[in-house]
Amino acid sequence: MNYPNGINRNKSSNYIEKINYANRGMSLEDDLNRTNEYYRSIDKAYIYKKPTPIKIVKVDYKINKITEGYLNTPSTTDYNGIYKGKYIDFEAKETTSMTSFPLSNIHSHQLKHLENINRHHGIAFLIIRFTRLNKTYLLLENDLECFLKNSKKKSISIEYFDKKAYLIKDKYTPRVDYLEILDKIGGI
Amino acid sequence: MNYPNGINRNKSSNYIEKINYANRGMSLEDDLNRTNEYYRSIDKAYIYKKPTPIKIVKVDYKINKITEGYLNTPSTTDYNGIYKGKYIDFEAKETTSMTSFPLSNIHSHQLKHLENINRHHGIAFLIIRFTRLNKTYLLLENDLECFLKNSKKKSISIEYFDKKAYLIKDKYTPRVDYLEILDKIGGI
Repeated sequence: MNYPNGINRNKSSNYIEKINYANRGMSLEDDLNRTNEYYRSIDKAYIYKKPTPIKIVKVDYKINKITEGYLNTPSTTDYNGIYKGKYIDFEAKETTSMTSFPLSNIHSHQLKHLENINRHHGIAFLIIRFTRLNKTYLLLENDLECFLKNSKKKSISIEYFDKKAYLIKDKYTPRVDYLEILDKIGGI
Repeated sequence: MNYPNGINRNKSSNYIEKINYANRGMSLEDDLNRTNEYYRSIDKAYIYKKPTPIKIVKVDYKINKITEGYLNTPSTTDYNGIYKGKYIDFEAKETTSMTSFPLSNIHSHQLKHLENINRHHGIAFLIIRFTRLNKTYLLLENDLECFLKNSKKKSISIEYFDKKAYLIKDKYTPRVDYLEILDKIGGI
């Protein structure tokens, strides 16, 4: 799929950004679901979003309807799966901030989970989208851990992302080609 | 944890089996959750049961209560995670049959999913418990695929399990030590 005629995607005027954003109208979650669907369709990787963890209390089994359930705090991350035989695990978050990503968006047990995966030789990372900047980054767990160990700050600045994370190019198919980044980094 | 005094676990009288079963009173799911918890506690593997997939329609966010939701058909398997850097993926089922495991217990897209994982060098398998025989088997995807390709039968006989699958010894800690089987088979 191509961009509409005459729109230069690299030109960073607010006007262009608004158009693109309206055209896309997709959340990061939607984009990632489509991306993972695409990867599966070409037999490249099998990575899924885990269902939302809930505690089911009452079910009408005749129509498979849940009439009472409670949203639980997620104990792990949202996405995992396999790529080139490797275990892949990540959490994805959006922020409307223009300057930094607030760490309060991620639970401490999710950070601990990513650390465990990394230590066990899985590929663990965050995908963070700054929606108002229209920028999506992949931050490897190593670099996240390094930040957490060396900083008392409650948010990760965009400068840190520019320095340590990988910018995921905006595409149409797949929308968020994070495996391309992993291929470039190597080690898979 | 030890067995109660005087009970010989290996003696296969019905009486002993009943006692043990009553003492345990645990479903395969409970046993696997405890096993996975144990593996995590000793930093051996990070394998989780995925939450039940549901479609959430109405939520009272003040108390995180779901007032309308629907149970979805699972698109993948129930358990996945990482062990020794390898991607692990399996489905677990119980049957009360004494003679065979009915394939109708597993959705075709789950079988396809296991096949995909195996092809991509993940470790894919089934854990099947014959509750009335008090036997729990690990059947590798390769051997499952072999059965499906060579048989038109709608269930897998206990003889096939005895021949091709691995019997998981009944223990207390961990309850279903399936990683021990993977270690024995090798390749991880």
